[in-house]
Amino acid sequence: MSVLTFALAQFSPRVGDLLANAKQMVQLAEQAKQKGADVIVFPELAVTGYPPEDLLLRASMNKRVRNALDVLKQVNGITMVVGYPHQDDHPTQPQPRYNSAAVLCDGKILGVYHKQYLPNYSVFDERRYFTTGSQHVILEIKGQKVGLLVCEDIWQEKPICQLKKLGADLAVVLNASPFETGKHDRRKQLLQTQTKANAIPLAYVNCVGGQDDLVFDGGSMAVNADGSIAAEANRFSEQILLTEFDCETHAFKQQPAVAALSPLAETYQTLVVGVRDYVNRSGFPGVILGLSGGVDSALSLAIAVDALGPERVNAVMMPFAYTAQISLDDAAAQAKRLNVAYHVAEIHNIVNSFVSTLHPFFGDSDVGVTEENLQARTRGMLLMALSNKFGHLVLTTGNKSEMAVGYATLYGDMAGGYDVLKDVYKTQVFELCRYRNSLEETPVIPERVISRPPSAELRPDQVDQDSLPPYEILDAILQGYIEHDLSQTALVEQGFDCDVVNRIINMVDRNEYKRRQSAIGPRVTSRAFGRERRYPLVNGWQAGD
Amino acid sequence: MSVLTFALAQFSPRVGDLLANAKQMVQLAEQAKQKGADVIVFPELAVTGYPPEDLLLRASMNKRVRNALDVLKQVNGITMVVGYPHQDDHPTQPQPRYNSAAVLCDGKILGVYHKQYLPNYSVFDERRYFTTGSQHVILEIKGQKVGLLVCEDIWQEKPICQLKKLGADLAVVLNASPFETGKHDRRKQLLQTQTKANAIPLAYVNCVGGQDDLVFDGGSMAVNADGSIAAEANRFSEQILLTEFDCETHAFKQQPAVAALSPLAETYQTLVVGVRDYVNRSGFPGVILGLSGGVDSALSLAIAVDALGPERVNAVMMPFAYTAQISLDDAAAQAKRLNVAYHVAEIHNIVNSFVSTLHPFFGDSDVGVTEENLQARTRGMLLMALSNKFGHLVLTTGNKSEMAVGYATLYGDMAGGYDVLKDVYKTQVFELCRYRNSLEETPVIPERVISRPPSAELRPDQVDQDSLPPYEILDAILQGYIEHDLSQTALVEQGFDCDVVNRIINMVDRNEYKRRQSAIGPRVTSRAFGRERRYPLVNGWQAGD
Repeated sequence: MSVLTFALAQFSPRVGDLLANAKQMVQLAEQAKQKGADVIVFPELAVTGYPPEDLLLRASMNKRVRNALDVLKQVNGITMVVGYPHQDDHPTQPQPRYNSAAVLCDGKILGVYHKQYLPNYSVFDERRYFTTGSQHVILEIKGQKVGLLVCEDIWQEKPICQLKKLGADLAVVLNASPFETGKHDRRKQLLQTQTKANAIPLAYVNCVGGQDDLVFDGGSMAVNADGSIAAEANRFSEQILLTEFDCETHAFKQQPAVAALSPLAETYQTLVVGVRDYVNRSGFPGVILGLSGGVDSALSLAIAVDALGPERVNAVMMPFAYTAQISLDDAAAQAKRLNVAYHVAEIHNIVNSFVSTLHPFFGDSDVGVTEENLQARTRGMLLMALSNKFGHLVLTTGNKSEMAVGYATLYGDMAGGYDVLKDVYKTQVFELCRYRNSLEETPVIPERVISRPPSAELRPDQVDQDSLPPYEILDAILQGYIEHDLSQTALVEQGFDCDVVNRIINMVDRNEYKRRQSAIGPRVTSRAFGRERRYPLVNGWQAGD
Repeated sequence: MSVLTFALAQFSPRVGDLLANAKQMVQLAEQAKQKGADVIVFPELAVTGYPPEDLLLRASMNKRVRNALDVLKQVNGITMVVGYPHQDDHPTQPQPRYNSAAVLCDGKILGVYHKQYLPNYSVFDERRYFTTGSQHVILEIKGQKVGLLVCEDIWQEKPICQLKKLGADLAVVLNASPFETGKHDRRKQLLQTQTKANAIPLAYVNCVGGQDDLVFDGGSMAVNADGSIAAEANRFSEQILLTEFDCETHAFKQQPAVAALSPLAETYQTLVVGVRDYVNRSGFPGVILGLSGGVDSALSLAIAVDALGPERVNAVMMPFAYTAQISLDDAAAQAKRLNVAYHVAEIHNIVNSFVSTLHPFFGDSDVGVTEENLQARTRGMLLMALSNKFGHLVLTTGNKSEMAVGYATLYGDMAGGYDVLKDVYKTQVFELCRYRNSLEETPVIPERVISRPPSAELRPDQVDQDSLPPYEILDAILQGYIEHDLSQTALVEQGFDCDVVNRIINMVDRNEYKRRQSAIGPRVTSRAFGRERRYPLVNGWQAGD
């Protein structure tokens, strides 16, 4: 039986470090060769990492790409399929740039395919950088005709259909497909539909790892022409998935199935990978965060410990007059349980010094949001001072519900470099706490933290529900408005109170200025705040039909 | 002599407020009609304002566009050329969306043109929203064949050339073209070249006003087939420019030329309009800013006063141990000269309370950047508290050189909603101060503020040049690196010291995280920090060739 062995190189390139990526790809190719692979397939734009953004426009980008390809050309005895940005040189006229896949073998480039469908929606801006390709590329490897596709190509009907018509025996697809809830199931369904409809098997390679707000979740796979999944890589971790293609039956060999992750499990892993890669790849020794005794900082702490280990995590409790004793107790208990450095710093003196300095301005005006913000900002300043002195990244802990309606203090609890829960609704925060607690016999998050009514503790006896509708209702409205672009009318038709809907929509729109200055955080939904939701700050749009 | 009179409606639509824009357009059309105009031409996407960004994706956008067009259809007796987003309705299949120009007359739509070239570079993301049109539209008005173009179309060779071939007597071009240094001269040259090369006259309409970081500078004009400019609107202000087109000679009637603005004058006006429209359209009663006695806050104050009037501007001097007496004197003198509310709030007590709260953590560690940041952040918190209490927008005053190299404190002097000088290099700050002083007999900015060595006054006897190269050198390197995408090698070849270049490039790249959380500010260069310079935060790119 003649077999073509593919190595699907699910790895985590570093955006911008082309030489390091090329060297790692050489190592992976050598490993794959030793394991008997004939072909190794790397993800989309593996050479630059994804998304390289405006680094693509740098004058020396092409030179660096050539240097990286030269490094890869030193590999012998294995065919490599390499994602990279392709631009021909020309002394005066800038040439079009393509999102390409090159087939390299023994120092030679055997063929280059240019991606034909360039996504320019959601988080993607590929038409800012790339020109669409127009030609298919099919190469013969060990007698098998291998057609090339890149990411968005496989989400369209035409490319895979044409590859089949042109006589390809199978397709390999290079991807940089970021996580969002339910996306992996959609990918699987898509690949099953496409292979079956066109009666052609394919090998799908995705990258892994966090890059700013995006987390790539892997899940590379080989799918047969009958739509069955023959081999599957793990999610969220680097892996060379070996898969044997039978050159006679034209099918990948069936391997044991990989257990699917629950929606909560994949979301939790996304947050862990997001934190881990942001912290490590930015070169921080560790992180620091404010622990309030509330559920958001509790979950953020657990995620940080899972991402970095307890020795790299520092928690600070910063009580004021309105901090309940149970908040102090629960924060201490959680820090102890997770074995992280824990400190308490009272903020009374600082807040009082602000109040007295401001007294000539404020006189006897009513105490209100201004004074609440002073507390939050004092805490933010303390965390930033500790970060400046000891080098730890400040994690912020605001969830998506808060970010949506602006229930957060700019330069206060919003101060920091990475917002762990930025794309996690409050109702999901509770679910993730329970999920994490279910993993160990002793819960890492004290039950009371989860069950008590949420409060910012910025005034006496305050609870979140004083100023917000119940989180079940708030989150449902937010999800409809943000993720599904529902209008006010459509939300009211779903049964939500008209005034509440109007109020929430106005809060979301009005607080764009806060989000614009917020820390990034890992994307888990199909519409995160950030590069995929672009709204003007000065905005005359009014809620309404 | 038969004449076709055009009204070029250089106005300032409000992004997102479609109904208000339509009503204003009706008023402008009525005014134009009374002045004898046959045709009124509005700017690109006048109905939504530019850029509407993801508002275009909202479910009710099409309905609002239709309602706005219905309002416009009530106008009789004048032909209107209206920029708007066009999308046909379909019960199930989403239809392509176009960036379009409709010709309306007496309640009827006579024709619709779809923009053929969609910019997706620099600040533009049009392919995120729009599909390219493929057909020219030429309409006969009073016997004249009028061809339509939208913005980017005129920057390409083909569209105007084809209009001519198709028999158009003249072209009208709808634009939303934001200011950048030198752009207006390039527009003029372009229009002169295009009209001459194709022997066709054109009417060019641009909008005006600030929208977030963009400032539209107007300068609408009518250009004859010989390349001569027949009529020209003012820059930066709303105006209906009337221009008569002779139907026999096929030429616009020559009007007196408008005096050109100097590069400093147009930059200064951009900053004034940016502040004015951001503050007014966000609904703030006024602004507050920290006055340090330095040149950046001095210039920002002058701009704020020119934008809003002195009664809406509040200045606060927040001295600490390192604040020189001349800083206090000069800040007070300037506030007095400009007639703004001026207060002094010492920050010793607050800074000391931070220092003592942090002492258990810091022990006897060396005093350094952490302590400097405490001063800056205390000032930021005071300004934010005053803003929260009294509702004034905090203006930040960091210039482009500082934003580039991270010579600014996140949540400190960077705290605020609009950064007046964000896109102005330090060397240009000095030039703009002198320019502003030249406008009045008594200089609004004390000479000593301009001539003393720049200092952040965060430690004894500190001057900026302790940690940065001289601003002339710094700015030249920054300009090469940021605006012209020059590599390290290219900069060294220009004669800059290799170590200095490396250091600066690394500072620029490393401080992307600060800029990501910075306030927006008016764009004046061809590469501002913000939507047109998109870099990853986690970035493995190293300076080098």
